[in-house]
Amino acid sequence: MIDQDVIDRSNAVAEAALRADYAALGEHLDRRGIDIDAIKDKVAAYGVAIPSWGVGTGGTRFARFPGNGEPRHVFDKLDDCGVIHRLTGATPSVSLHIPWDDAAPAELNAKAEETGLRFDAMNSNTFQDSGQPLSYKYGSLSHTDPAVRQQAVEHNLYCIELGRKIGSKALTVWVGDGSNFPGQTNMTRQFDRYLGAAQDIYAGLPEDWRLFTEHKMFEPAFYSTVVQDWGTNYLIAKELGARAFCLVDLGHHAPNVNIEMIVARLIRFGKLGGFHFNDSKYGDDDLDTGSIDPYRLFLVFNELVQAEGAPDFDPAHMLDQSHNVTDPIESLMSSAMEVQRAYAQALLVDRAALEGFQKENDALMATTTLKRAFRTDVEPILAMARLEKRAAVDPVGAFRASGYRARVSEERPAAAGGGGGIV
Amino acid sequence: MIDQDVIDRSNAVAEAALRADYAALGEHLDRRGIDIDAIKDKVAAYGVAIPSWGVGTGGTRFARFPGNGEPRHVFDKLDDCGVIHRLTGATPSVSLHIPWDDAAPAELNAKAEETGLRFDAMNSNTFQDSGQPLSYKYGSLSHTDPAVRQQAVEHNLYCIELGRKIGSKALTVWVGDGSNFPGQTNMTRQFDRYLGAAQDIYAGLPEDWRLFTEHKMFEPAFYSTVVQDWGTNYLIAKELGARAFCLVDLGHHAPNVNIEMIVARLIRFGKLGGFHFNDSKYGDDDLDTGSIDPYRLFLVFNELVQAEGAPDFDPAHMLDQSHNVTDPIESLMSSAMEVQRAYAQALLVDRAALEGFQKENDALMATTTLKRAFRTDVEPILAMARLEKRAAVDPVGAFRASGYRARVSEERPAAAGGGGGIV
Amino acid sequence: MIDQDVIDRSNAVAEAALRADYAALGEHLDRRGIDIDAIKDKVAAYGVAIPSWGVGTGGTRFARFPGNGEPRHVFDKLDDCGVIHRLTGATPSVSLHIPWDDAAPAELNAKAEETGLRFDAMNSNTFQDSGQPLSYKYGSLSHTDPAVRQQAVEHNLYCIELGRKIGSKALTVWVGDGSNFPGQTNMTRQFDRYLGAAQDIYAGLPEDWRLFTEHKMFEPAFYSTVVQDWGTNYLIAKELGARAFCLVDLGHHAPNVNIEMIVARLIRFGKLGGFHFNDSKYGDDDLDTGSIDPYRLFLVFNELVQAEGAPDFDPAHMLDQSHNVTDPIESLMSSAMEVQRAYAQALLVDRAALEGFQKENDALMATTTLKRAFRTDVEPILAMARLEKRAAVDPVGAFRASGYRARVSEERPAAAGGGGGIV
Amino acid sequence: MIDQDVIDRSNAVAEAALRADYAALGEHLDRRGIDIDAIKDKVAAYGVAIPSWGVGTGGTRFARFPGNGEPRHVFDKLDDCGVIHRLTGATPSVSLHIPWDDAAPAELNAKAEETGLRFDAMNSNTFQDSGQPLSYKYGSLSHTDPAVRQQAVEHNLYCIELGRKIGSKALTVWVGDGSNFPGQTNMTRQFDRYLGAAQDIYAGLPEDWRLFTEHKMFEPAFYSTVVQDWGTNYLIAKELGARAFCLVDLGHHAPNVNIEMIVARLIRFGKLGGFHFNDSKYGDDDLDTGSIDPYRLFLVFNELVQAEGAPDFDPAHMLDQSHNVTDPIESLMSSAMEVQRAYAQALLVDRAALEGFQKENDALMATTTLKRAFRTDVEPILAMARLEKRAAVDPVGAFRASGYRARVSEERPAAAGGGGGIV
Repeated sequence: MIDQDVIDRSNAVAEAALRADYAALGEHLDRRGIDIDAIKDKVAAYGVAIPSWGVGTGGTRFARFPGNGEPRHVFDKLDDCGVIHRLTGATPSVSLHIPWDDAAPAELNAKAEETGLRFDAMNSNTFQDSGQPLSYKYGSLSHTDPAVRQQAVEHNLYCIELGRKIGSKALTVWVGDGSNFPGQTNMTRQFDRYLGAAQDIYAGLPEDWRLFTEHKMFEPAFYSTVVQDWGTNYLIAKELGARAFCLVDLGHHAPNVNIEMIVARLIRFGKLGGFHFNDSKYGDDDLDTGSIDPYRLFLVFNELVQAEGAPDFDPAHMLDQSHNVTDPIESLMSSAMEVQRAYAQALLVDRAALEGFQKENDALMATTTLKRAFRTDVEPILAMARLEKRAAVDPVGAFRASGYRARVSEERPAAAGGGGGIV
Repeated sequence: MIDQDVIDRSNAVAEAALRADYAALGEHLDRRGIDIDAIKDKVAAYGVAIPSWGVGTGGTRFARFPGNGEPRHVFDKLDDCGVIHRLTGATPSVSLHIPWDDAAPAELNAKAEETGLRFDAMNSNTFQDSGQPLSYKYGSLSHTDPAVRQQAVEHNLYCIELGRKIGSKALTVWVGDGSNFPGQTNMTRQFDRYLGAAQDIYAGLPEDWRLFTEHKMFEPAFYSTVVQDWGTNYLIAKELGARAFCLVDLGHHAPNVNIEMIVARLIRFGKLGGFHFNDSKYGDDDLDTGSIDPYRLFLVFNELVQAEGAPDFDPAHMLDQSHNVTDPIESLMSSAMEVQRAYAQALLVDRAALEGFQKENDALMATTTLKRAFRTDVEPILAMARLEKRAAVDPVGAFRASGYRARVSEERPAAAGGGGGIV
Repeated sequence: MIDQDVIDRSNAVAEAALRADYAALGEHLDRRGIDIDAIKDKVAAYGVAIPSWGVGTGGTRFARFPGNGEPRHVFDKLDDCGVIHRLTGATPSVSLHIPWDDAAPAELNAKAEETGLRFDAMNSNTFQDSGQPLSYKYGSLSHTDPAVRQQAVEHNLYCIELGRKIGSKALTVWVGDGSNFPGQTNMTRQFDRYLGAAQDIYAGLPEDWRLFTEHKMFEPAFYSTVVQDWGTNYLIAKELGARAFCLVDLGHHAPNVNIEMIVARLIRFGKLGGFHFNDSKYGDDDLDTGSIDPYRLFLVFNELVQAEGAPDFDPAHMLDQSHNVTDPIESLMSSAMEVQRAYAQALLVDRAALEGFQKENDALMATTTLKRAFRTDVEPILAMARLEKRAAVDPVGAFRASGYRARVSEERPAAAGGGGGIV
Repeated sequence: MIDQDVIDRSNAVAEAALRADYAALGEHLDRRGIDIDAIKDKVAAYGVAIPSWGVGTGGTRFARFPGNGEPRHVFDKLDDCGVIHRLTGATPSVSLHIPWDDAAPAELNAKAEETGLRFDAMNSNTFQDSGQPLSYKYGSLSHTDPAVRQQAVEHNLYCIELGRKIGSKALTVWVGDGSNFPGQTNMTRQFDRYLGAAQDIYAGLPEDWRLFTEHKMFEPAFYSTVVQDWGTNYLIAKELGARAFCLVDLGHHAPNVNIEMIVARLIRFGKLGGFHFNDSKYGDDDLDTGSIDPYRLFLVFNELVQAEGAPDFDPAHMLDQSHNVTDPIESLMSSAMEVQRAYAQALLVDRAALEGFQKENDALMATTTLKRAFRTDVEPILAMARLEKRAAVDPVGAFRASGYRARVSEERPAAAGGGGGIV
């Protein structure tokens, strides 16, 4: 873990400038009729979940270049997640992935308490074989063979069972099922098999749990995927029942798609389950959130803030990124703050003015109203929220100063790198 | 019109070669267990509707370069459509667009009888002002002003009224509504306004009619559209009721989208209304059907043939193209035949074998089964179907030989070309 | 024109808040080692050209909904451009389009003097027929018929001739040439014909002029375009000679393309001619600059600022947008300021730090260095630059207060709207 | 290997039908003025190289599901490649990948002789660490550290050295270099470093060798790649010298890009080096050639056939696919035949007629000329070419009948599957 001393020392250096920036921004926002402290309090209360797998170094089908001190198991991962939360105050929960993170519930709970974290949604894995008797090479929940589907259903039920013991309240299902060739699968029958299996999982869902299904346009299947877009995902959630919802991963869409509109539609029809935040330029690039198109992230949050307070509106927020060239802890801290930033900017939108411009078809002033909120530099708000929590004003700086990575590198042996024989 | 003599003379030249090709293909298909005459009969019975606006020369926002002998009004258009059907035997109906084709029902019916055509779906137009008192600049069915929505609803009801008098059984609604700027519109409220107005139209739909709504990703709105994809379109059809269905235009999707899968999903959930056939490489290019990616067209028909015979499965087929550099009559004939071609190829798929390969996850043989059907040159089947109807074996050749274009050019004055001052 | 009084009154209201914001930002930047006044001076000296056609209401192939008080001719257009420059102080020049803006040079020069503007690059038009004897339906500079090519060349030479008389120093050539069908054209021969014609134009270029050619992926041609991407455009500029350069329009690329990298490559090989600024989500949407992806615009300017000061580096900056739902004057003012904003943000990048992070492969800190500059709210810098020029602190507000649009609407009769019979 | 007996028995069953089909097609083509035997001879003489890595099962970043009897090393791979060539007669050469296929030249030559194969281009690998002292995590030929660049150069020189000893005449260089974040790299300096290192490789190229560089839009780098498109690749080849050429991989482009036009441009400027054939729907999907868009493949070959016979025109043809759900031997055989099919179809284009239609701007007949060639079922031509070589009329059927896969599965132990901890 990180010593509070390290953080405090780092904050001491930054505090004066931060207070000056915060005061100046406060005056500026006051002129716009906005109470900076109210915004800060909402930001301070906001949290985004960390995926346990995110703290390991990512890779591509070509290669994986491991970093130093990579976590060996879920307990190391929880340590790393604890560091992220300690430094940012923005990531109170962790989402486990089974079987990668399978462990005794008591030990998981103990570690969570130690690191000050709780457990978010459980993630099942039926896109790898992972030592199961039957292979998922040709699909899992939608496989032509009922025995394979049954195996995949049971794995999901196991994830629920484990999740119940550690306080999770949701199961996230993403499958790699699809096809690589026209004709390889009957797309309708494959969908129906998927639906049947998903219903079996849903039947095992505790009353106070939610089931999240996730669409993806392509990869690892390259001709069709069984849950290819939000339309299919909506139909699945609708067929399953009231506790089934759709997850939106920002990199799982076709090129040029208006993602904030998908968010708006899912909200409208009561099926927005939550997010896997990341950014992308080409496909499911899993880049750091906000690193490619920060305005798009803001526009998503603009929809969320607009829907805030609606009954039963409670989307789950999680990061989901692959850190191939950065220290995963640094990227996750940075990304958690980008999510907060978008949220803070969206809170600054003058919604009464916006509504007026929309009513009058004053497109220029309507869009300027959004841009004005977006271009406000809310960094002092975020940093002040951190300072008041005794998290770090500059989390990356404090992390580097702490020597944490070097320290764990000594305990954790270097992981194997490599990559398939794939071009 | 075209003299039967012209056609017969043209056919006389081609007949011997056609019969030889047909016989050889028949023997080949016989070895594959397929009765060529049965395929030919299904092809002969197949028809695709012509959009009345398709017989005029198209254009872009940059320019429109008129052709010779362009139709002046709906009666000229029906003449041209009659020529297309006479030569191909494949286009028995015409889809009108109001107000462009507004005319006295009795005269329309008389002309239809004269040209041997019937009327397909009616198309409303609320994407242009067209002399209406209120402007559609900021939307029509989804406009913020209820008076504009009312005007748009009434126009649609008028289209139904006219359609009833000429034997149409469906209304197609496509709107240009959307926005050009983030924030210009509240996407959820805009959708709800659209839905309310669409319900008003649906309320006026005769019992034996269907309502087709059409999604489109972009253009003329360039940030968001109110019916942006099939997911939203499905939700609209679902909300409206049992006689509301979704139209699929092959050029209205995001890049890389698997269109045949959308078709499969809409079939699965009972909401496939029909097609606007064309082809595209970049956007809503409205190119000739099958001219860019003929295999994709085949894969769509593969889904349709697979669903043939299901209860209540009766999608409407129409061409929808913009002919900027070709003679519209020639392009429409050629495209109608491309649609027939894809249908014929899809009929050749060995579905029992395919199903077996799918069951065994034999992806290579499954896809080869489709490819084998696709690569069969079915031209002799299509041509024989035409010959037997005394349509033209070579419609484009017969059309050119007929002198029709030159003849109508004398009667029909040159249309204005031009284009907006738009770069 | 706009009275200085109107502007001054508007500024008087805003000045105190602006001075407070500017002072606070100045202190903040000072802590980052940046002199705010130096940035402001660079921004104040920066200008972007207005395209004459931009002040008219745009449209799509579906419809054009005219606005009030649309300019009737080039002199009205220059009045509108004068207003834009008066209010923003950021648009000192206008780019004419021939034949739309053809007029007597003396009158053009007189009007320019009156409105305080000068003339930027000349734009030729061979994508419409515009009363020429030979049609461009099947191409212009690349047409199979040498007479058509000759006509197109002569038109370009005429544009140069006119441009010389009004002080222009560049010719911009964009053609709609391409094809709608595979096989319609031999793509290599078409390219060679284009090249030959472009060489004829280049031969007529004065010694102190530059020739800008512009690539575009699609539209109005929907299968291929003769200058489809920057690669082809580079080869053209290379073949033509030292005074030929490539223009980059932000909406003319394939989906997902890294535009800032194209800018970097063209700089590297000495062929970046300049920009047509706008924004796009789907294709050549011609939306307001920075309205969809402001970070992308910043990244382009990041390349430009990095290259500043290199010998012979002098790209031309112009807006090129289609204003379908906004007042063109307002959109152009707003867009000119967005371009300035991106420039100002790019000036804030700590380049020494960036270079260090790049050297050390510290991807996180490198990208954070860019983001830090981008998220700085530079509005006070831009507004102060305007205030000091006695342009408007709030150009849109001042414009609305001025009553200019209502005034010109009285003089300028309503333009025809409408749209082709195109779906 | 496969016994000739197995092939002969399989052919005996198919021969009568094939001869009937061939005769019928011959008569049909004769009516079109085409000599079927001449086409068959050209097809018979055509060969495409197999990449050694293609005979192993592919995978994605999510998982790799190994097949049975996967090759353990280059000698097993050559055995598999020998089978492919024996059955199709279409794949006379193999392209090695170093270090995966590193072995003693004498043994490689002996094995090649045994399997009846020769060696095509050598492929270097600097996108994985592969036991090198310095890591390629942050780049190889473009790394900021000259020592890393030097290591990468030397590896390429080693590939040349090995290649010389086994009769190869070309080196293919593809790098994964790029960046994942805006600002991570100075794109211009990175390019210059790449260029410098490539020049060092070029300096070591034997006089009778060619250097192929390959562009790719994205993956494994997800923000920028150092050779992102054909434009950059052209500039590299140009800078390097007369023996440097550009490779075109069909899956390495932006969405919607007109690939056949890129081919045409590279031919025009003398820099087309060759192809990596595969097919894709979304990105670098590496699907079987012709499986997604067979018409696109045909259009590429249409450009190649048009350029045939030009001086110094000699592109290298290779497959490059990832076989995730099929038997690699079957997919490679099938793909080799798809390449032949496209070639045969392109040979059928009536080029005199096409040229005439192009000259007259008869777009419909021009494109119909291409379509007519494309829709001709040339399978009898391909099969007859195989029969006459005593390769298999039905290679997949004969392969399955041969029991080869089961046989090698006994000798070759099951490979490890798995996949990274990457979502």
